[in-house]
Amino acid sequence: MATNPDRGGHAGREFFATRTVAEALAGFQPQRRTPVQTIPLREALQRIPAVPVAASHALPGFARSTVDGYAVRAADTYGVSEVLPGYLEVTGAVRMGAAPDTAVGADTAVGPGSAVSIPTGGVLPAGADAVIMVEYTQEAMPGTIEVVRPVAPGDGVVRADEDAIPGAELVPAGRPLRAQDLGMLAAAGVTGVAVHARPLVTIFSTGDEVVPPGTAQLRPGQVRDATAVALAALISEAGGEPAQGGIIPDDAAALGAALDAALGVSDVIVISAGSSVGARDETAAAVGRLGPPGIWCHGLAIRPGKPTLLAECAGVPIIGLPGNPRSALVVFRLIGMPLVRRVGGCARPPAEPVVRARLERDLASASGRLDVVQVRLRDGLAAPVFGLSALLSVLTAADGYVIIPQDATGLDAGTEVDVTLYR
Amino acid sequence: MATNPDRGGHAGREFFATRTVAEALAGFQPQRRTPVQTIPLREALQRIPAVPVAASHALPGFARSTVDGYAVRAADTYGVSEVLPGYLEVTGAVRMGAAPDTAVGADTAVGPGSAVSIPTGGVLPAGADAVIMVEYTQEAMPGTIEVVRPVAPGDGVVRADEDAIPGAELVPAGRPLRAQDLGMLAAAGVTGVAVHARPLVTIFSTGDEVVPPGTAQLRPGQVRDATAVALAALISEAGGEPAQGGIIPDDAAALGAALDAALGVSDVIVISAGSSVGARDETAAAVGRLGPPGIWCHGLAIRPGKPTLLAECAGVPIIGLPGNPRSALVVFRLIGMPLVRRVGGCARPPAEPVVRARLERDLASASGRLDVVQVRLRDGLAAPVFGLSALLSVLTAADGYVIIPQDATGLDAGTEVDVTLYR
Repeated sequence: MATNPDRGGHAGREFFATRTVAEALAGFQPQRRTPVQTIPLREALQRIPAVPVAASHALPGFARSTVDGYAVRAADTYGVSEVLPGYLEVTGAVRMGAAPDTAVGADTAVGPGSAVSIPTGGVLPAGADAVIMVEYTQEAMPGTIEVVRPVAPGDGVVRADEDAIPGAELVPAGRPLRAQDLGMLAAAGVTGVAVHARPLVTIFSTGDEVVPPGTAQLRPGQVRDATAVALAALISEAGGEPAQGGIIPDDAAALGAALDAALGVSDVIVISAGSSVGARDETAAAVGRLGPPGIWCHGLAIRPGKPTLLAECAGVPIIGLPGNPRSALVVFRLIGMPLVRRVGGCARPPAEPVVRARLERDLASASGRLDVVQVRLRDGLAAPVFGLSALLSVLTAADGYVIIPQDATGLDAGTEVDVTLYR
Repeated sequence: MATNPDRGGHAGREFFATRTVAEALAGFQPQRRTPVQTIPLREALQRIPAVPVAASHALPGFARSTVDGYAVRAADTYGVSEVLPGYLEVTGAVRMGAAPDTAVGADTAVGPGSAVSIPTGGVLPAGADAVIMVEYTQEAMPGTIEVVRPVAPGDGVVRADEDAIPGAELVPAGRPLRAQDLGMLAAAGVTGVAVHARPLVTIFSTGDEVVPPGTAQLRPGQVRDATAVALAALISEAGGEPAQGGIIPDDAAALGAALDAALGVSDVIVISAGSSVGARDETAAAVGRLGPPGIWCHGLAIRPGKPTLLAECAGVPIIGLPGNPRSALVVFRLIGMPLVRRVGGCARPPAEPVVRARLERDLASASGRLDVVQVRLRDGLAAPVFGLSALLSVLTAADGYVIIPQDATGLDAGTEVDVTLYR
């Protein structure tokens, strides 16, 4: 019975073990990494440095005042107070962005009993070892200030190498660059960064029923491709460059040819498989023919998302996702995004927004399987959004998700759980 | 004494109250919003819909099978069991992506005592009200199946409007679009979305000591502009479009002219002011001359970041940031990013990654001021990164930050705190 969606196709899949999510994350570790390219600093937010970047010189590079005030010898202020002020002769002024020797005034080196006016950020003049805030001084007479608080050496001053000593690691390899990292690199005069190229991730949709989102009028039985555009978004979030491979009909030769062509240009291939067992088996067969090492697992102990295939062929990791858009997106978040990050050189994945909340009701789960439950948050309660795994509205209605661990048989209402928030 | 960085410039600032961060977030609410533009769905990740998008038709649009099996009349299966199986005549087969009337087989309408083979996702044929999984059937003889489990009406079926009824809100206005939202819109045939334009945020750096990051050799007293590139990154993260206005010398006329020109083309203006009191006063004076309603506050009760100026001139919100890069970035995260989001139409800011951790040591704080303390996380402990506010390395060494609330006078070692993580 060729038209019976029966066990005929099952036999091939039995060769491959079902794996747990933990096994997949730890064991499916393709070695592929994208090449290194140098990009301008201003485009480097969230990009992954391929090597640490070190300071070529000390920062800020000169001893700087941290306050508006007077550069002094700290010893000249010892013992002064409101009752017994000290007096210093103002012998010059430091201007911003200029060396003290260009300052207004005859002598900018600070000698005993003298002071030089200095703005925040100004270069500490020779001879001075501290800056006293203008608030603790007043003009006693033209050219002389009265000082009412003592300062210690180093007060009001940033040392020349206090922000970075020469050779200091400014940013590590493998961690996405944050705003402040770009600032630090700019301060150090680094205007280009050697980063990993964004992994090129080719997305294929399969299924005779799947038509492009732009299809205005659906024929009976047709559905628009919801998964490809959503996967592209998740790939971008993971630092990858999505490429749409298009919709492939349920035809082993067509899929095989498309995958073959994609192997040469992709860092990762993602296939959102047809929803029927027959379509999934065709995907597995096509992937299996691509070459060694081949299929790593076919079946993940996760709900939703069991019919997931992981493979590596000709050095390219391949993820076969379930046909249901909701299942596909759940699995891609848990398995695909970490993979794309790794291929892109990311060793420290970014922090996920997680909040603690109490479950609004009991959640059942089968032991031996990780359950991903979509939830809405209201008043500190996590309310599960129920619905068939075929429904995308379950995901769009959710604020985040709760993972029921593999060894749990469910969670009771009132249990405190971690909710990973969508953003 | 013209060269004395003294109180001469202070007088003007005393007219403006220092505000708390809470007052600024609640009270500084410029009404500016960016115009609406329609963009392709594939470019809409994290963009802000200006209006809700509704479904023009039901989704999936037809009753679909959720399993591989046989479309049946549920009543035909009542009472069957392993011991007492029922028998149904297979009268046809549904093919993917096609209406049942194009199916193989003479008759695809399911009559009493008959069944039609159907793959997951196939169109439920007329007459059937349930799908029985293939696992609970077996071929008794060619053309006849044995059924060993009963099904209820609706089993194995997604209703035609179960993912969305016609007119259902697919995505709300004002919330950044997530991957699953794009998927849902694609499923509904929506290929363009009306979103708020990204706010154009012009960044000015001021200070005679500030030179471009590309300056290879610094002269004494010069520092490279670290703030502008980091601010641009935070503006992008907040959904804005950064525009570099360049470095303006400490000259009131030059700054005034630059601000005037930027007013006409910017949705928000950010000035990283010079670090000295004189430079800050010049910025305030230049902003004050731009027009009503003018300066809203000059001075925020926050450390670091006190010398912050908030203003609105000619309908454009203006943020004057402290000269220290670290202070500038702290303030821009707390005050600037929410402002950019609001101007860009975002009513629901994205979730921040926050973890609970115990303070490794006591933290002192003055009451009446909000303190932002940079921390490293290790073994569940939040270890403060200390250092002058002039040091950017304090920010690059941090994993996140802790806020000491305004009314607290410090936090004891061991206190559980929320750490907002950088990503």
